[in-house]
Amino acid sequence: MIIKQKNIDIQSLLHRKGIDAYLMYTDSIRSADMYYISGFFAGDAFTYLYNNKDILLVSSMEKERAKKESRITDIRSTSDYGSKDLFKIHKDPAEVYSRLLLQLLKKEECSSIAVPNEFPVFFADRLREAGIHITCLASPIRKLREKKTKTEIKAISSTQRACELSASKAIDLIRSSKIKGNELTINGRPLTCEYIKAVIHHSLLDSECEAQGTIVACGPRSCDPHWQGEGVLKAHQQIILDIFPRHMTSRYYSDMSRTVVRGEPDPKIKEMYEAVLAAQQVGFDLIRPGANSSEIHQAVCDSFTYAGFAVGEDEGFIHSTGHSVGIDIHERPGIGPQQEILDAGNVITVEPGLYYRDVGGVRIEDMVVVTEKGCNNLTMLDKNLQL
Amino acid sequence: MIIKQKNIDIQSLLHRKGIDAYLMYTDSIRSADMYYISGFFAGDAFTYLYNNKDILLVSSMEKERAKKESRITDIRSTSDYGSKDLFKIHKDPAEVYSRLLLQLLKKEECSSIAVPNEFPVFFADRLREAGIHITCLASPIRKLREKKTKTEIKAISSTQRACELSASKAIDLIRSSKIKGNELTINGRPLTCEYIKAVIHHSLLDSECEAQGTIVACGPRSCDPHWQGEGVLKAHQQIILDIFPRHMTSRYYSDMSRTVVRGEPDPKIKEMYEAVLAAQQVGFDLIRPGANSSEIHQAVCDSFTYAGFAVGEDEGFIHSTGHSVGIDIHERPGIGPQQEILDAGNVITVEPGLYYRDVGGVRIEDMVVVTEKGCNNLTMLDKNLQL
Repeated sequence: MIIKQKNIDIQSLLHRKGIDAYLMYTDSIRSADMYYISGFFAGDAFTYLYNNKDILLVSSMEKERAKKESRITDIRSTSDYGSKDLFKIHKDPAEVYSRLLLQLLKKEECSSIAVPNEFPVFFADRLREAGIHITCLASPIRKLREKKTKTEIKAISSTQRACELSASKAIDLIRSSKIKGNELTINGRPLTCEYIKAVIHHSLLDSECEAQGTIVACGPRSCDPHWQGEGVLKAHQQIILDIFPRHMTSRYYSDMSRTVVRGEPDPKIKEMYEAVLAAQQVGFDLIRPGANSSEIHQAVCDSFTYAGFAVGEDEGFIHSTGHSVGIDIHERPGIGPQQEILDAGNVITVEPGLYYRDVGGVRIEDMVVVTEKGCNNLTMLDKNLQL
Repeated sequence: MIIKQKNIDIQSLLHRKGIDAYLMYTDSIRSADMYYISGFFAGDAFTYLYNNKDILLVSSMEKERAKKESRITDIRSTSDYGSKDLFKIHKDPAEVYSRLLLQLLKKEECSSIAVPNEFPVFFADRLREAGIHITCLASPIRKLREKKTKTEIKAISSTQRACELSASKAIDLIRSSKIKGNELTINGRPLTCEYIKAVIHHSLLDSECEAQGTIVACGPRSCDPHWQGEGVLKAHQQIILDIFPRHMTSRYYSDMSRTVVRGEPDPKIKEMYEAVLAAQQVGFDLIRPGANSSEIHQAVCDSFTYAGFAVGEDEGFIHSTGHSVGIDIHERPGIGPQQEILDAGNVITVEPGLYYRDVGGVRIEDMVVVTEKGCNNLTMLDKNLQL
């Protein structure tokens, strides 16, 4: 499934902001905004200009593909603006491209434009020198991306099914492992994080998904929430599985974490697990359209404090409650100290965790969609600490 | 293998350019420069400041991991600069971060800095308003990345072995397929591009590599060099395999293309194949330190012209001869119309191709390392059109 956002209302959005022209320059692998607005997937940077209509400026080699694949119909190529001659005069590609941008803007009679905060300063400087007035603004497209359509929610759910299938395979494997001393073995050989990750990634591939940065983190070092894990898995120690795959065609992510122990968990880990589960429920109960996400985060923090755990920067609950998920793995709105208002259609994680240097971390993460009345959990995999 | 560029001579490089302080803000998944200079792999943007020493500014959650994983020892966290209080005053994260950057620069007594061309214009505007003098420059780190060390060449070669293994599996499968009418079948079922890609990707995973955008493009539509291919593979039509995986740990890419036909190739495809092979040899013969890459590209173009094929924008040879490969799939120097001087240690593709709308494309791509005397081909997989 390729999702082409054919009905993106960039026009009314920009006009509401009093903007006539909006310019972006980036590629659509790195930039979810560019992919969302253009529906054109390309690894090399290209230009999007909104000037009462959508325009793409791509290299001549990409023109035909852009015509076929992009949702935008007005496709122009850099050679239409004399890139060949410019390259003869200027050696520096950035210098050439700044002139191409200027010619595009002149042709379109844009003397005042808005650009996203991330627009390259070099191009901004050159365009300003040439008399173009430039205003930076937080990406209006990012704002559009917050509220997911039914098709997008379906795409995210589909990635989530793949995520759960891969997690199930990993958990089944851990469950079926043997305990030998303080280590886990499978078929008589040590069971490693690397092997579990390979199982997860092969399963994801079979579902046309890919994943980077998958976490299979065992024991005390998992006190670092972003440690990806390495080496042999230990018995009686918690294993955090955090999988955030992306579907290779739809390009939508999902995100889920589970914490499991093969053997007998440390009593402190059990306590932490119960507190995290309770904190997650607090989150679920408060999510609804119009809710202030910082208040939800505070309630989750309070739940930890009430259960006797620290909330802070060093140990205990040390990160936000959640983030939205879409074409990027981290989208707005989030559920953290920053005040943001939730809206129906937001797809957002609820992932409280506790982290202590002596025992490590516990994290449970589900992904929900905000509905008219509250939220629906898009995650179907059950939660069991002990295997 | 994790390659930490411990001996990066950013100091002498910057001082040669008369720069005392250099500021970057980006993440190290998207930015190869940031990964190269920091050795710290993180999906959320962070800050690198060179001010006669290397400094990283990361979120408080990432501080401990950065201390362990980065090659840089001076790690500071945003909370050291009062991020918590700033977030209470300003809602906008970009606003907060611009103030954090300003405080870092003030603390380091930097009133004049250089930034890469891609530095976000919003931060540049804010820092300039606060009196910081900012100069843009083409990334000096990108320049450093051009000349690969022995360790880097080993990493790229290792990815290339994985690439070849996956390509062999794909080619073996195509070779063993049956011809049924004008389609290829395997075990009685149609053999599809999607299946071949899955075989390639599973093989890459087993070698700890991942790949995006893999091309398995069959027939006339392959006249678009970036078309990824879809559907059932056809007998007697050429199939372009273009695989550019990245090793998940070293993060170094490799790149290779092969064109094969199961059955009897069209005579035009045979002619194109011979011309592409000859053009590639022209490239190999001219690559050496000090060579002007635009002259090599011109010689490759001439070879096509001599063989009776067009060189232009529409059909025939429509792209550059090659590009360098490293932590990014497209690095400098390239072999194209732009004048660039090759140096020993460049790892660069030689990938001539011909594209016609009636029959489609033919491309052959190897990756070589520039040596003191010429170049060594890092690609070991043989080239056979007909299977």
